[in-house]
Amino acid sequence: MKAKVYVTLKPSVLDPQGKAIHHSIELLGVSGVNDVRQGKYFEMALDESLTSDDVRRIAEQIAKDVLSNPVIEDYRVEVDG
Amino acid sequence: MKAKVYVTLKPSVLDPQGKAIHHSIELLGVSGVNDVRQGKYFEMALDESLTSDDVRRIAEQIAKDVLSNPVIEDYRVEVDG
Repeated sequence: MKAKVYVTLKPSVLDPQGKAIHHSIELLGVSGVNDVRQGKYFEMALDESLTSDDVRRIAEQIAKDVLSNPVIEDYRVEVDG
Repeated sequence: MKAKVYVTLKPSVLDPQGKAIHHSIELLGVSGVNDVRQGKYFEMALDESLTSDDVRRIAEQIAKDVLSNPVIEDYRVEVDG
């Protein structure tokens, strides 16, 4: 079973990398983009024998303890199938 | 209007960072996780005046030209209504 974790900077935290990407996009002459923010994305493959509740619990724990910094980042967990 | 871009390593490309995360998870004593792969995630805010087709076209172009390396990475674009 697969779990996906999305980690994003909290809205109040500055994102210089996103600003740099936004600047590159403007230099390329693409218009219409007002803001870019970068985050992280993780795909985890878990044992097929686990229930989807177990998968969500494990993925939430990993997202909280390993994949994100709760001071400056938010995370979101999605369980596939 | 918002567009989200997910960039992942192609399945055939080794992901040492994902392997390191997997190892950390095992050291923490969490069982049931078979594999972890890391990717990148981008949120773009685009002009509200654009149609959703325009937003997708612009986001695909940026994903292809700026956000991903087509030799080793795949990308996926989602447009938020």
